[in-house]
Parts: sequence; structure tokens; C-alpha cells
Amino acid sequence: MTQAQIGVTGLAVMGANLARNLARHGHTVAVHNRSQYRTKALIEEHGHEGAFVACDTPEELVAALERPRRVLIMVQAGAPTDAVIEEFAPLLEPGDMIVDGGNAHFLDTRRREAALRERDIHFVGAGVSGGEEGALLGPSIMPGGSKESYQALGPMLEDIAAKVDGVPCCTHIGPDGAGHFVKMVHNGIEYADMQLIAEAYDLLRQGLGLTPAELADVFEQWNESELSSYLIEITAEVLRQVDAATGKPLVDVISDQAEQKGTGRWTVQIALDLGVPVSGIAEAVFARSLSGHAELREVSRALPGPSGATAGSAGEGFAEDVRQALYASKIVAYAQGFDQIRAGSTEYGWDINPGSLATIWRGGCIIRADFLDRIREAYEAETKPVTLLAAPYFTDALILAQESWRRVVVKAAELGIPAPGFSTALAYYDALRAERLPAALIQGQRDFFGAHTYRRVDREGSFHTLWSGDRSEVEA
Amino acid sequence: MTQAQIGVTGLAVMGANLARNLARHGHTVAVHNRSQYRTKALIEEHGHEGAFVACDTPEELVAALERPRRVLIMVQAGAPTDAVIEEFAPLLEPGDMIVDGGNAHFLDTRRREAALRERDIHFVGAGVSGGEEGALLGPSIMPGGSKESYQALGPMLEDIAAKVDGVPCCTHIGPDGAGHFVKMVHNGIEYADMQLIAEAYDLLRQGLGLTPAELADVFEQWNESELSSYLIEITAEVLRQVDAATGKPLVDVISDQAEQKGTGRWTVQIALDLGVPVSGIAEAVFARSLSGHAELREVSRALPGPSGATAGSAGEGFAEDVRQALYASKIVAYAQGFDQIRAGSTEYGWDINPGSLATIWRGGCIIRADFLDRIREAYEAETKPVTLLAAPYFTDALILAQESWRRVVVKAAELGIPAPGFSTALAYYDALRAERLPAALIQGQRDFFGAHTYRRVDREGSFHTLWSGDRSEVEA
Repeated sequence: MTQAQIGVTGLAVMGANLARNLARHGHTVAVHNRSQYRTKALIEEHGHEGAFVACDTPEELVAALERPRRVLIMVQAGAPTDAVIEEFAPLLEPGDMIVDGGNAHFLDTRRREAALRERDIHFVGAGVSGGEEGALLGPSIMPGGSKESYQALGPMLEDIAAKVDGVPCCTHIGPDGAGHFVKMVHNGIEYADMQLIAEAYDLLRQGLGLTPAELADVFEQWNESELSSYLIEITAEVLRQVDAATGKPLVDVISDQAEQKGTGRWTVQIALDLGVPVSGIAEAVFARSLSGHAELREVSRALPGPSGATAGSAGEGFAEDVRQALYASKIVAYAQGFDQIRAGSTEYGWDINPGSLATIWRGGCIIRADFLDRIREAYEAETKPVTLLAAPYFTDALILAQESWRRVVVKAAELGIPAPGFSTALAYYDALRAERLPAALIQGQRDFFGAHTYRRVDREGSFHTLWSGDRSEVEA
Repeated sequence: MTQAQIGVTGLAVMGANLARNLARHGHTVAVHNRSQYRTKALIEEHGHEGAFVACDTPEELVAALERPRRVLIMVQAGAPTDAVIEEFAPLLEPGDMIVDGGNAHFLDTRRREAALRERDIHFVGAGVSGGEEGALLGPSIMPGGSKESYQALGPMLEDIAAKVDGVPCCTHIGPDGAGHFVKMVHNGIEYADMQLIAEAYDLLRQGLGLTPAELADVFEQWNESELSSYLIEITAEVLRQVDAATGKPLVDVISDQAEQKGTGRWTVQIALDLGVPVSGIAEAVFARSLSGHAELREVSRALPGPSGATAGSAGEGFAEDVRQALYASKIVAYAQGFDQIRAGSTEYGWDINPGSLATIWRGGCIIRADFLDRIREAYEAETKPVTLLAAPYFTDALILAQESWRRVVVKAAELGIPAPGFSTALAYYDALRAERLPAALIQGQRDFFGAHTYRRVDREGSFHTLWSGDRSEVEA
């Protein structure tokens, strides 16, 4: 009897596509789904693509696998994932592996990894990006878990991952939840990137009065510049699309209430716990939720805007200014995301290599872009940058961009066009540059009302002014 | 033997001051602390202020109380609070009350309330604001828990609370965690308010070249305007303070790395779960954490700023522009905070009355201000505002302020002075006003790469464009 190299349970579109991708690469894949119709459909429609072993039960799947066994679960995050783990774990033996390719919260992954480690089973939380098409044709894969498990799994995952310059978009990220953590931050960065593109579109459309078709041309041109990326490319495609029913640009018939599934929110929540300012990602998440508050927006439409604003008033050179502002803001968003990854890596002892992370994001995933190659280079340089902003390539880009960036933030405020992503990125940049921040005043206020003490610039120690006494200073 | 009306356990400064406040108001207060030296110190130093019953053990404290018993616990949030509850609960009888006056997370309060309800003990999570001085002289108190418990506790708490126009700054907020929830949002608003004041200070100092002493005058004048508030008042005091050791303004010798204790962070994390954009609070939390990243700031100081910027270049009228910008941004921050309270109230079924909340924040707490009276009026009007921005009084204020506000955001970007609070508030305002948001493009992108579908402006339903097929639209 044929022994399968890997088993996949959960054959909704992501699971089915990963199974097909594995089979197409010459692996024998045991497939299983709770409702058998999905298994049958996969075999009927795609059985010719490679070697599949259809299994009706978890027991059959486990029996079909060579040892150590590799079981990839592709089910809904949360309780369903726990249920499937509990179904399979008792059937496995020491040294076997369970891979969770869903969008689990990394803290759940840490919990599961620890619990399965007790039973000598490797648990691998693997972030998988690229959507349905990526799963089939080559995703970016971010597996966490033990080094030992990566030895047994890595070659197979690298096989099916996207390739850039022949390098697979898959690498071992780090222990336990590291893979799902970086996938979460990847998605947070994706939110920020999309929000910045949306602001650029809005500014050009309202500020210059360009049509969606004209803007499609603009984004197509930008895709030839350092902004070149999948998201810029599909922006042009979406703006080019005409709605068949109305003859209008599709973007004008789509409801302007953005939705979200949660990883952007998680990114910000975890960044807050880690003390990392990820304002670009936060503004992107807030912009989406604001857009969905229909009633709030309805009553606010009557609020006054700038009196002198007219469409088209932005003037010549504005498009290039916006392109530069988008690039500078994007650098800030990625710098914040990579800061969060460093902070998470330190907090959880993961030893994540930011350079290899940038390498595997160059292809397969939603934020894939030439830009990631610049980030890879920055982290592979002899002197590791403390922040991407201070890496020579990006500093140079910011030197070129910053005056344009300021003009765009100015114009947005003058025209009354919301640009929260551009403005927060600029404020972050200017705050980081600042010789002195007004945080000193905040420390003074906190000491006044709560005796929280402050530190001094000229001496070690904590100090308190006796505000309601004689206002002398005491050492705390 | 004298029966005490209330017992206080945990006699660090907040607990001791609340006990003294209660005793000063004629209540007999049983006091207990794990280490007896604190109990002794309280009696020795302040025993003459009222009727105290010193108790060495929890059993003694419980025995000293009239029924139903009221036990106020003032210990550290988290595990210490759980430990003290577990110490006292077995000694209590049905109908007795435990009040947690610490800074607990409202989700912990919900858990504790549910667990104690099973044992027929009322658990009251009470937010207490005003710091040490407020605890002694009159805090703002936000008790959650059952209506029944408020009947037994309310009069005593209202007694010791601050009063404004004879009205106590204490009211029943709502069931279970409602009190600690609103205290959390109060603190979040406080973060935003402080950040905005800090930005105003920074802009005036760098933009106009004013000294801290001159700025103390400015804030003193502002305290006579609609900005009048405790935080503006103490800002003037802090700026006026001269460091005895160096002769420099104190604000210049305080380290510019702001600290935080966590309630601001919680506010943003919970707002994200509730889908409420609280960008003003988020930027304040991020600004504090950014200020503390010394290494990041160190390497970023070399990044280029605006080439034409010079101190003093802001020019005449700028101080009034900044005052208006501060007021407008403050209205936005409070509007966001009150949105979060409404969302929390809906999510947890608390039925919180925002008008009475504004009423009890007028005095005793850190954000106390005339301004809160305007918020109270807005929510007591016949037509309840969906957002504070749309309440007539605030809309009028925004009409007056918005051109100034824009000029300040423009000037900050031009001068390279970070103003994340001012800018995010303006972006929020402009986004709420917008007829169409670029969120439609984001929905288009999401449909392109993830088949997430979109809604249309002209028809019900969910739709998907076959982007990798013939690009026709299908109903999902």
C-alpha cells in the first residue's frame, strides 16, 4: 500500500488548494474532510493532478501516512482547530507532526504547541499568505515550531511555496507561535499599505479631479517605480474595472464601508502590549471601522469643511508629491511592523531573522513587492539597522520624499480630505527625529496629579516635586 | 460594641485616604491591612479624624460590620485582588457586599461579579478617580454592580464624593463591569487630553519661541476660556515651576520619556474589539511609548527635517489658532470616548446614561472641566446626539475652530513638529464628514485578492467580480 508523505484535513478551498499544490509537486497526499462530499469532489475534479489517497476517517488518514506523520489541518481558527487537534492527537505517535495552516492567534498556537509537546507531538503553527490562488500556485509560508519539525517539513513546504530568484518563500521563523505572529504582523502591514494606497487614490481623485480610469493609468505608472508591488498592480486593475450593470467605474458602485476579519486588530492589540507604536496599522484599522459606522457618518455629513476648497485646486506636481508621500508613509508602516516583530521576538525568545522574513515576503503573499528586497538588504548589511528608517537606502528615500510628503499632508488638511495614514506616518517620523519631545510635560503632569515621579536628564533616580507642599523636589 | 458601617481592607495611601474620607463624613469605618503596621499608623496619625475600628484579621473586620456588610478592598489589581476576595468571601453572608475600588480590568470585574453572585454576595467594581488627594477630599466614583447594592452603598459613596453645584460626583453606572469600564475609558480620554495639551505646548514653544514661563501665562489665560479644566490648570503650574538645582524650568530637566500604567492601552485594545475608532486615545498611548524608545530616537535624530523651518516662523494669530485646534481636537477625543462607552454599554447590556456620566466627571477626577457640563447638556437634550460632534453646541464650536485647526495641522507639518493628536483628530473629523470614503477601493482590493466580496450602493446582497476569470460580477 502507498504511504502518503503528508495528510491534509479540512478541504475547503484553502485546504484543497494546498493539497493540490502538494500533489502537483509529486508528493502523495492523504486527504480527509469531516463531510466526505468535499473529499469526493476533490478527487473527482482534481484527482488526475497527482497522487491522492482519499480517507473517510481520521484513523484512515493517520494509517495512510509514512512516519513521522505530517498532518496539515486547514480548518477554522479557534474552537474548531482545537477540536480537530483533539481528534488527531490521540491517533499519533511521538515524533509525529501537526501543522496548523489557518489564521490562528499566536497565543493559541503557543498554548497548543506546549500542550502537544507534553505528548511528544510537534505542533507547527504555519502562517500561509497568498489567498486561494497562492495556496494553489505558490504561497508565502511562515512555519513556527521546533527546528526538528522543520527538518522533516521544510523541504516539502519550500517545494510548494512561491519562488523569487529561485529562492523559496518559506523559511523556519522560530519556535512555537513565531510563525503565526509574523503572519499576523504581515496582515497588519497589509492593512496599512492598503489604507495608504486608498488615501493616495482619494487625494488624487478629489484634489486633481482625475477619473478612476485615469487613476488606473497613474497606478500602472507607479507600478514601474520603487512602489512596484502586487497591491499597486491590483489597485490599477480595480480602478480600471467598469460595472456592467451601470456603466460606471466599479469603485463608484461598491459600498464605501470596508470590512475586516481581525488580524489587523490583533496586530495593534499585541503591539500595545509590547509597547511598540504601530500608528500606521492602527489608523488603517480605525479607518475601516469608521467607514462602517453608517449612522455616525450620516449625522456628521453636515459638519463644515474648509471654505476655500475646490476640486482640482491641488495643482501641478501634486501627483508626484502624492507618490512620494505614499512611498515615505509606506516605509514608516513597514518600519513599525518590523519593530513589532523584533519586540515580539525578544519578548518570546524567538530569535527571528528579519532579513529572511523580508526574503520570504518578496513573493506569494499580498504585500509582495520589490521593496521587500530593499528591506532584506537593509537587514543583511553588516551594521543592522535599529529602525528601517535609519538604514541608508531608506534614509536616502526619505530625504528625497519628505518635502513632498509634507506638502501632501498640508494639502489634505487644507482641502478637508482625510489622510490619517499619511499624517500619522509623518508625525511618527517627526517625533522620532525630535531632539526633545513634550513627553517631559506629560511626566510633570503625572507627577502633579498622581505623584507618579519623573526622571531627570542630569541625574539618575526618580524624583517627585511636593506640588501641594513647598514645591521642593524629593528623591523617590 | 460599635458596629461599623463599612470596612476597608488595604491601607496603602488610596485605601487609607478613602477610609479617612468616610470617617470624616461621620461613618464608623473598620480598617484592616495584611501588615498591621499600616493599620496602626492610620489610627495613630488620623484616628482623631473620626470613628475607626482597627482590625487585625479579616475575621475581626467582618465581625465589626453591621449587616448587610460592606467591605471595600483597596489592593493591587489582578491576582492580589482575587486573593483578598477569596479571603473575605467565605466569611460573608448572602446580601453582603464586596467593593473593589482598584483599577481592575472590567473583564475581571465581570468574572468576579458572576462568581460572587453564585454565592449571593454582591460584587461592586467601582472606578475611583482623583488620585490620592481626591480619595481624601472627594473623588469621582463610578460604581458598577447591582441596583440593590447601590441602594445600600450609594448614599455613603455620594457622601464622600466630590460635589459640583451640590450634585455628588457618584452615580450607579450599570451592572457588573460597567463601573470599571467607564473608569478605563475615563483614563483613555485623560491620555488623549494630556497628549493634546503637550502638542499645544510644543507647537507654541517651537513655533513661537515662547519660554515655559511665558507658556504658563498662556495656559493660565486659556484656563479662563472654554478650555478651563484641571489639566490646563496644572499645566500652567508645571510650566511655571523652576528647578532649584539648576535654575532651569523644571520641564526642561525632566526626562522626555513618558510612562504609563496600562489603562490607556486597555482602552484602545477594547475599542478595537468593539470596532470603535478611538484614534485620539491610540495616538496618545503611542506617543508615550515612542518617547520611551531611546535607542530608536537616538538613531533617528539624523533624519532630515523641513529645510525652510525656523523657530518663530509661525507668526501672529498662531497662539489663538493653537487654542482652537486644542479645543476642536479635545471635542473629537471626548466624542470618541463617549462612542466607546455607548458601544460597550450596548455590547454588555449595561444601559449606561452618558449624561449622568458627564455629570459625575465634572468634579473629583483628573479630566474635570466645565466642558463636561456641555457634554451633560448635550446628552440631556431632547434629541440625543449620535455623536457629540453633531450636538449643536459642539458643532458650533467646530464651525468656529475648524479653519484654525487646519492651519495648525498645516504648520506642524511644515515646521516638522509632531502633532499626531491634532492631525488624527482632524482626519477623523474629515472622514466622518466625507460623502464618499476610499474604503470602496479597499473593498475592491479585498475582493480581488481574497474573494471577500463587496456590497453595492444600488442593490442589496454581496457581490464578487471574477477577477481571474471573465471579470463579470456574480452574486455571492
